[in-house]
Amino acid sequence: MTNKVKQYIDNYKMLEKGDQIIVGVSGGADSVCLFHVLLELQREYELTLYVIHVNHGIRGEEALRDEEYVRELCRKEKASFTAVYKDIPLLAKEGGMSLEEAGRKARYEVFNQYLIAYKCNKVAIAHNKNDNAETVLFHMFRGSALRGLTGISPVRDKIIRPLLCLERWEIEAYLQERGIPYLNDSTNFTMDYSRNKIRLGILKEAEAVNKKAVSHIAKAAQSLTEIKEFIEKSTQKAEERILIKKEKTCILLKAEELAAEDVVIQKEVVRKAFYLLSESLKDVESLHVAAVLNLLDKQAGKRINLPYGITAVREYHHIELTLGKKGMEEVTGAGEAVQERELMIPGITPLFEKGKILTASLLNYKKNMIIPQSICTKWFDYDKIKDTVLIRSRKQGDYLCIDEKGGTKKLKAFFIDEKIPRQERDILPLLADGPHIMWIIGSRISEAYKVDENTKRILQIKLTEEEQNE
Amino acid sequence: MTNKVKQYIDNYKMLEKGDQIIVGVSGGADSVCLFHVLLELQREYELTLYVIHVNHGIRGEEALRDEEYVRELCRKEKASFTAVYKDIPLLAKEGGMSLEEAGRKARYEVFNQYLIAYKCNKVAIAHNKNDNAETVLFHMFRGSALRGLTGISPVRDKIIRPLLCLERWEIEAYLQERGIPYLNDSTNFTMDYSRNKIRLGILKEAEAVNKKAVSHIAKAAQSLTEIKEFIEKSTQKAEERILIKKEKTCILLKAEELAAEDVVIQKEVVRKAFYLLSESLKDVESLHVAAVLNLLDKQAGKRINLPYGITAVREYHHIELTLGKKGMEEVTGAGEAVQERELMIPGITPLFEKGKILTASLLNYKKNMIIPQSICTKWFDYDKIKDTVLIRSRKQGDYLCIDEKGGTKKLKAFFIDEKIPRQERDILPLLADGPHIMWIIGSRISEAYKVDENTKRILQIKLTEEEQNE
Repeated sequence: MTNKVKQYIDNYKMLEKGDQIIVGVSGGADSVCLFHVLLELQREYELTLYVIHVNHGIRGEEALRDEEYVRELCRKEKASFTAVYKDIPLLAKEGGMSLEEAGRKARYEVFNQYLIAYKCNKVAIAHNKNDNAETVLFHMFRGSALRGLTGISPVRDKIIRPLLCLERWEIEAYLQERGIPYLNDSTNFTMDYSRNKIRLGILKEAEAVNKKAVSHIAKAAQSLTEIKEFIEKSTQKAEERILIKKEKTCILLKAEELAAEDVVIQKEVVRKAFYLLSESLKDVESLHVAAVLNLLDKQAGKRINLPYGITAVREYHHIELTLGKKGMEEVTGAGEAVQERELMIPGITPLFEKGKILTASLLNYKKNMIIPQSICTKWFDYDKIKDTVLIRSRKQGDYLCIDEKGGTKKLKAFFIDEKIPRQERDILPLLADGPHIMWIIGSRISEAYKVDENTKRILQIKLTEEEQNE
Repeated sequence: MTNKVKQYIDNYKMLEKGDQIIVGVSGGADSVCLFHVLLELQREYELTLYVIHVNHGIRGEEALRDEEYVRELCRKEKASFTAVYKDIPLLAKEGGMSLEEAGRKARYEVFNQYLIAYKCNKVAIAHNKNDNAETVLFHMFRGSALRGLTGISPVRDKIIRPLLCLERWEIEAYLQERGIPYLNDSTNFTMDYSRNKIRLGILKEAEAVNKKAVSHIAKAAQSLTEIKEFIEKSTQKAEERILIKKEKTCILLKAEELAAEDVVIQKEVVRKAFYLLSESLKDVESLHVAAVLNLLDKQAGKRINLPYGITAVREYHHIELTLGKKGMEEVTGAGEAVQERELMIPGITPLFEKGKILTASLLNYKKNMIIPQSICTKWFDYDKIKDTVLIRSRKQGDYLCIDEKGGTKKLKAFFIDEKIPRQERDILPLLADGPHIMWIIGSRISEAYKVDENTKRILQIKLTEEEQNE
């Protein structure tokens, strides 16, 4: 079996001569086996091993027994031993995680910390094939994309997982053959409902369907890992042809080139654009990616809103993805600036030729009225307005009040701070009282017009779709 | 729900106006739902529906009740109804299949038969998302490659599966809402151990881990389908650069071009070469594919044997894959013809400078002796040999007996029929009695020398590796 692990270590180039390795040892079968395998290879690779045991603080006496067990094991093998105490139940509670999750997180943190402290260059972790199969199924049931189905990596950054080529029974057989004792897993974090359901229920049933199910799932994960890497490389090449980073908040995708790609690559390129703009792939669902790709068949000017305040616009030769206007209602016309017009009070004033309208009404202020918090309905103190209220686009000298004490800010500065893309700034409709911007329509209002206890008349303005009032 | 199905039908272009459709209806929830959905769409798409019910002959009375139920359903809806009787238990027994497998096979055969008989252009089958998830897991547990993980196709050839976008509960809800009765699935073929284990055990537990597990697995299958198609397209392009079909039994892979590809594509190209030579992908395991790719790092001349009698040789600029010598032991030297030499009887004669040897011995024939069936051990009737037995390569005029009646065949014709590649023919070692080839060493012997009841002395020749006798 050591040969099998050695082969695996060599395949993935996990070890080099003189490696200094942090070895996570809980005392369970997997980590005890890992420690022994590394001891066997120690001379050949001139390894220095630093065993780290995380005392998880669950069931105090048992935890202490585990720690003592690992300490004794290291003493016997003359290996460096460090025990680190972590209050996992507390960390789980604070982080809103399961014990298993909190334990995993804490262990990796400790390993990384001692990697630096002990000047090591690697961390060896005792995941096996069963853990890998469990992870693949867990992600599959949760709806992960390809990434999740690739399971646990044999090598990632400084982490190596030499036992990932072994099933649990092989590890147990190895220990039994050599008469090496280990702690029962019941002392580990087997309290994660979903993980346990898969580990103890589903994987056992899968093995009843096919004896080698665990190995087969792990093999699928490996094959999907290769496929994932192939797609990443292909995406990288496609990106170089298609994706232009115009500025930090704006990406252009060449439409013709994008359309020529396979749908797999199209999706990955769009995801990459999202990632570059938002620095996160969370919440980017396949339906948003599909919506962007749909723009390929649309006429120039077509615009859609996406998570993170990202807007996608079909231009003649590109799809333009722009970050900005977080928490804003989309109120721009078909790429044109709004035409200056007077707001009808009371009355209905269209913002553009088609689409959104503003409905203005006057209300009398009553004590304890609840001021609407909506993006689309705003209240203004009508008696604080000095000039005719205009709907218009921006002009030199525009400003707004940004705090209750009357502090003002230039509209231009506001646009920059809010990351409103340059080309949007000229077409955003504003509600203006002279150079004082009452409302960046769809976004914030000037603090100067806020309704307070001294307000007598309220100007209520609703932003709605045209159809809704017909 | 009909809208959801309609959307799915449109996405996959399942229906066109005027389609004539065979609809498989067992009477269970899925197929009854399928029938009703197609009835709803019948006018819009101007469909003609032909319901086919396969009476599976399991539990005779129940089967008859099922048939009557579907007949009545069709009468009510004024749809064409055909019942076809198939003795599934018998077919299962004959074919060594489970009832479920036999039932599936029989149904598809019947549908295809009536597709032609009724001049239809499509067959609608009632698979749902649960079936798809079940299939994905089943294949994953069995160790399928990517292909297996893509699940059930919404459209394949003339088969359409409009309900593949629905989970079972959606189908049941549809039927319940409309008060449409259906037969209990217990009358179906739910006797396949593995499938049932997944359907009733694992998928239920998966749903306990994540409520949408079934949909998530189906979504993974869809995403992997796109990925599979992308890999197929990429492989196609790579093939055009790399793969040269020299002749029917010989393929060259350009080594430099192959080495430049991603490992995913390398593997697919090698698989394709196997497929082109053997017309089957069965038994081509990843280790064989890896063995071929390993040749990229080897010196010219390196040769390996693969399933189907395929040989792979590293040449200077290519890897050459050759089909031939089915059921043959590999006995060629390092690309050189065998040197003519006399067979030592009894004694040991090497075939080449290094490698295989022939060990000859003389035995007396006894009644009821069991004649060895091995490729490497052959018996000859010693007294039928006319000349000195020579080991040599082929000569003009060589022949062998190919049937018991003494019919002969020219060695050249035999080589052609057996698809022995041209370049192999000159180097294959033969055991010759004058121009009469006693044994194409590693393959068949001439019928003329076969041991029978009149045989007195047996010449036994064993083909082995040199080392074995040292």
